[in-house]
Amino acid sequence: MNGVVEGETLKKISEPKDLKALSRKELKSLCSDVRKYIIDVLSNNPGHLASSLGTVELTVALHYLFDIPKDTLVWDVGHQAYAHKVLTGRKKEFLNIRKFNGISGFPRRDESKYDSFGTGHASTSISASLGMAIADKLSGKEDTFHIAVIGDGSMTGGMAFEALNHAGATNANILVILNDNGISIDKGVGALGKYLTKITTSRTYNRLKNRIWNAMGGNTDVYNTHRNFFRRILSFFKSMFAGKSNFFEALNIRYFGPIDGHDLDKMIQTIESLKKIKGPKLLHIITKKGKGLALAEDNPTTYHSPGLFNAQTGALEKKEKNNEEPKKFSDIAGQTIEELISKYDNITCITPAMITGSGLNNIQEKFQDKLFDVGIAEEHAVTFSAGLATRGIKPFCCIYSSFLQRGFDQVIHDVALQKLPVVFCIDRAGLVGEDGATHHGVFDLAYLNLIPNIIVAAPLNEEEMRDMMFSAYHTDLPFAIRYPRGKGYISGKLKDMEMISIGKGVELRKGKNVALVCIGTIGNNALKVADELEQEGIKIGVYNMRFLKPLDTDLLDEISKDYNNLICIEDGVKKGGFATNVESYLMEKNRNNKVTVLGIEDRFIEQGSIKELQSFCGLDTESIKAKVKDFF
Amino acid sequence: MNGVVEGETLKKISEPKDLKALSRKELKSLCSDVRKYIIDVLSNNPGHLASSLGTVELTVALHYLFDIPKDTLVWDVGHQAYAHKVLTGRKKEFLNIRKFNGISGFPRRDESKYDSFGTGHASTSISASLGMAIADKLSGKEDTFHIAVIGDGSMTGGMAFEALNHAGATNANILVILNDNGISIDKGVGALGKYLTKITTSRTYNRLKNRIWNAMGGNTDVYNTHRNFFRRILSFFKSMFAGKSNFFEALNIRYFGPIDGHDLDKMIQTIESLKKIKGPKLLHIITKKGKGLALAEDNPTTYHSPGLFNAQTGALEKKEKNNEEPKKFSDIAGQTIEELISKYDNITCITPAMITGSGLNNIQEKFQDKLFDVGIAEEHAVTFSAGLATRGIKPFCCIYSSFLQRGFDQVIHDVALQKLPVVFCIDRAGLVGEDGATHHGVFDLAYLNLIPNIIVAAPLNEEEMRDMMFSAYHTDLPFAIRYPRGKGYISGKLKDMEMISIGKGVELRKGKNVALVCIGTIGNNALKVADELEQEGIKIGVYNMRFLKPLDTDLLDEISKDYNNLICIEDGVKKGGFATNVESYLMEKNRNNKVTVLGIEDRFIEQGSIKELQSFCGLDTESIKAKVKDFF
Repeated sequence: MNGVVEGETLKKISEPKDLKALSRKELKSLCSDVRKYIIDVLSNNPGHLASSLGTVELTVALHYLFDIPKDTLVWDVGHQAYAHKVLTGRKKEFLNIRKFNGISGFPRRDESKYDSFGTGHASTSISASLGMAIADKLSGKEDTFHIAVIGDGSMTGGMAFEALNHAGATNANILVILNDNGISIDKGVGALGKYLTKITTSRTYNRLKNRIWNAMGGNTDVYNTHRNFFRRILSFFKSMFAGKSNFFEALNIRYFGPIDGHDLDKMIQTIESLKKIKGPKLLHIITKKGKGLALAEDNPTTYHSPGLFNAQTGALEKKEKNNEEPKKFSDIAGQTIEELISKYDNITCITPAMITGSGLNNIQEKFQDKLFDVGIAEEHAVTFSAGLATRGIKPFCCIYSSFLQRGFDQVIHDVALQKLPVVFCIDRAGLVGEDGATHHGVFDLAYLNLIPNIIVAAPLNEEEMRDMMFSAYHTDLPFAIRYPRGKGYISGKLKDMEMISIGKGVELRKGKNVALVCIGTIGNNALKVADELEQEGIKIGVYNMRFLKPLDTDLLDEISKDYNNLICIEDGVKKGGFATNVESYLMEKNRNNKVTVLGIEDRFIEQGSIKELQSFCGLDTESIKAKVKDFF
Repeated sequence: MNGVVEGETLKKISEPKDLKALSRKELKSLCSDVRKYIIDVLSNNPGHLASSLGTVELTVALHYLFDIPKDTLVWDVGHQAYAHKVLTGRKKEFLNIRKFNGISGFPRRDESKYDSFGTGHASTSISASLGMAIADKLSGKEDTFHIAVIGDGSMTGGMAFEALNHAGATNANILVILNDNGISIDKGVGALGKYLTKITTSRTYNRLKNRIWNAMGGNTDVYNTHRNFFRRILSFFKSMFAGKSNFFEALNIRYFGPIDGHDLDKMIQTIESLKKIKGPKLLHIITKKGKGLALAEDNPTTYHSPGLFNAQTGALEKKEKNNEEPKKFSDIAGQTIEELISKYDNITCITPAMITGSGLNNIQEKFQDKLFDVGIAEEHAVTFSAGLATRGIKPFCCIYSSFLQRGFDQVIHDVALQKLPVVFCIDRAGLVGEDGATHHGVFDLAYLNLIPNIIVAAPLNEEEMRDMMFSAYHTDLPFAIRYPRGKGYISGKLKDMEMISIGKGVELRKGKNVALVCIGTIGNNALKVADELEQEGIKIGVYNMRFLKPLDTDLLDEISKDYNNLICIEDGVKKGGFATNVESYLMEKNRNNKVTVLGIEDRFIEQGSIKELQSFCGLDTESIKAKVKDFF
């Protein structure tokens, strides 16, 4: 890759064991090299930059001190593990990170023995590490170490707490490293974050000592008179505070820190001494997201995943602003919610730590009191929305498709069962591209399909999405709208929102013999196929069903009468998805149409560009066209 | 109902407002009456006894002090809300609690305006209450109160923490009442429980004062000399502890208590004073599960849901022990895991707070180090199991079907994606009876169906379940086995376990024209239908497919050749379930068999006996027989 420089020290490292031979000075030079390498590669090949720059010293310290895979190391979320990838035999492969057939942007057990556990979604690391630690204990391996690296953002996820609660009741040898950069993707939220800031900026015991001194009026005579007494008291308080003053200590997790996560010497010294302490423990380190690239340090949210940039200056590669170019679905969704909030008093917007990703910055600026960022906490986000809905508030709960899997039970139990009119704006539905297997939103049609009482819609384009959001506001039932990552299809100003009929699809092209029966934006591929075939003199039908449920059975009746062959197309898993609704209906009605199903097979899909992945899954225009031609 | 006595004070109460007119003495007498009423009714009509006996004073205090539904009251889980039901206009309906067409055993918004939020699954109450509180703030209602009552067991669920983390960053008027009985259903577990016990038994500040006194050697002279100094120090420490020493205070939730939850005067006085304090706050009350019925107080787990008992003595109604009678699926599952643990070194068993319900008491007794009760924490349970599996341990993760919905993302992301060989023993699958809508395990086939890399099996009976568990142990892939609540089908000693072929079904009856194609224990209804019809001279086929996935397509090929009509039968939702796999396969292969699907329609099913509910859903033998006869 052009312009990628492998520093002298980095050149020496093929495997983590090479790193153990380095002097302290060389280790520091390695940190520089790794940082430079990540910046160089990512400037050309977009990825998660800022998080990984923040963990370079930590990564070097951990591989210096531990022996993976004998010991285990779990990176929560995993987008901060780039230095780890570079140092564990994947320097060359790193050039193709997040590319089709390249290495994943997240740790993967099937990619390297050094990736102890695959991640992608937040807050799983402590559970996994605890499992590993206890497994080793059961197997009689008493000398292994188990490290979970978790950010302050991920720490707000409920399952991290569940794991701490369990860990604190065991004597498992796990070391949780709380990588506190005060930010998850957007600025961190919630009480825990504030608490962490508080203990970071003024540590209890130190403050206590000063206050005692002040309480004494700085009177050293008094102190000297009762020196032993004060010593005893201070030592008692120290143990009291060490034992009690802390959120983590309350859960019986020994707490250490905070220390500077970029001070390599201090990190090595501290972690080395923690190796001697048995049982569950937590080290709080303070790091800077984007460390080493000034612009990224100053704008960690922008540089979370910055796209192309200049490796020297950090300056983002400017794209020509083209007002005619379609905007992103996320941004249009955010603007639409803003428009609705302006119009209707009772709307609120809920996001689990995804203000920027979900296009909600405008709402944060203009309607801060109507926007609730609840932290990385999808379960709470859903039920909190349900609570709002019981009191006349209309919540627009914005969650990425693959993350809503975390709120699955809450959608069933708190929203659907009670028929509470929560609107789910489900972003990143379908194939998402470079984030890969953990992030594809390909399960949502299937997992929402099985839930009673909920309306599930998927728009063909951004104008239809707006109409669906408008219609959802005016519908007194749970209502889910799923739309993809990336750009829309319509240039220029979008039309005003209007009501659409719930459960009604539309005919886009009238044809003969073959009908493409579609849901969601994948229907645009179908349209393209139909238009291209028309050039060849073949006229096929294209139907945009709009709703997974309720299913438009009237339209299906027409289609099944008018066409012998139906090709159902969806950018979700075939199992239990849209096509199964169509098939079940046709079977129930004894129709004998030939139905072909295009969708995601029963397997996980890795990373790549949307184009590559659509082709891989047989959902691109070429694949669809080939299927159609089978019938002519 | 026989023997149900409505006490004199209870007679006066039709609505909560009647209660506000009572004197303090009458309120106490009301508590006795309510307790007696609950005991009388439940002695004849089984339900959740012990939890509700523990919350009588709390319920009376809350309805005395607050004005529901202007204020809101959310009962976490909700099985402790019987006194609430009795006092909110449902005295008569209470006689039919948990019955078909009777009232639900859990709060239901559609049942009463006094049920602010429906519950059933744990840990939702704080999220919902926070939503309500914030909704009222947004609507300009500043004078309403929002109460969440949550047990110490439910507090271990991650979403409760997510909600506290959010609440602590707001000024919402919520009062969380932590109903601490030291027990969830089984004895509470985890670090939080230990912490709660610690702060209950020796409160920090009091201990601190004593220790200072001791540190001074009890020397009052020293104290007097520096009286002001000590006062200042003590007051400083008091604020330090009030502000910091507490888990909840770390999350910026003001903490009060603990107080005796059965001391009505103290409760009324405390909660009344808390009404004046704005913002999020938590009152810790100590209650006794089973309070007022000596046997229940001593055996809270047995009396959690005790079945029939003597209202005067509490003595359980003895059932004739009949060794020939089939045992419960849960118990056989527990015994089978025990048998496997005895045989194979590397097996562990994981349960989220359901040792007794999942039949695991035997393992707790004999293999304590192999059993991990992680608290009400399904997310953690799944990923912890995944962690164990990475290090050569074979986890049997036992979770009820409807509760595994909480671990849905973890099954996908941590287990299936990584192909980790976790065995899921999914109890309470299908219709569960009296626990109703929140507890039916009718979604599992559909939500597991959509997940790649996992084997999903459902046995016809308990011997097949054992074979599946044995086969799962010997299979190096994620493996889910779902089985129902209640008794098995086989009397006497069960046969030894043996391997079965993964993805292979079996022919149970050979017939003509109609084949019943079944999965799971509902197949026993099909068998009965076939046997009864044979008496009438009609021979139909019955097929036990055993596996939802991989689907036995060879067997399906045969069936589709041999029979014109297939009736698919499953005790789960039709949408995305077993039958959709069959239909998709047949359509793909261009078969023209007529397929009829019997399963749960796209709606929630309420409570009732399994027999009543099977009939309601068209899954009982009569309904199946009627469908078959349509073809003759």
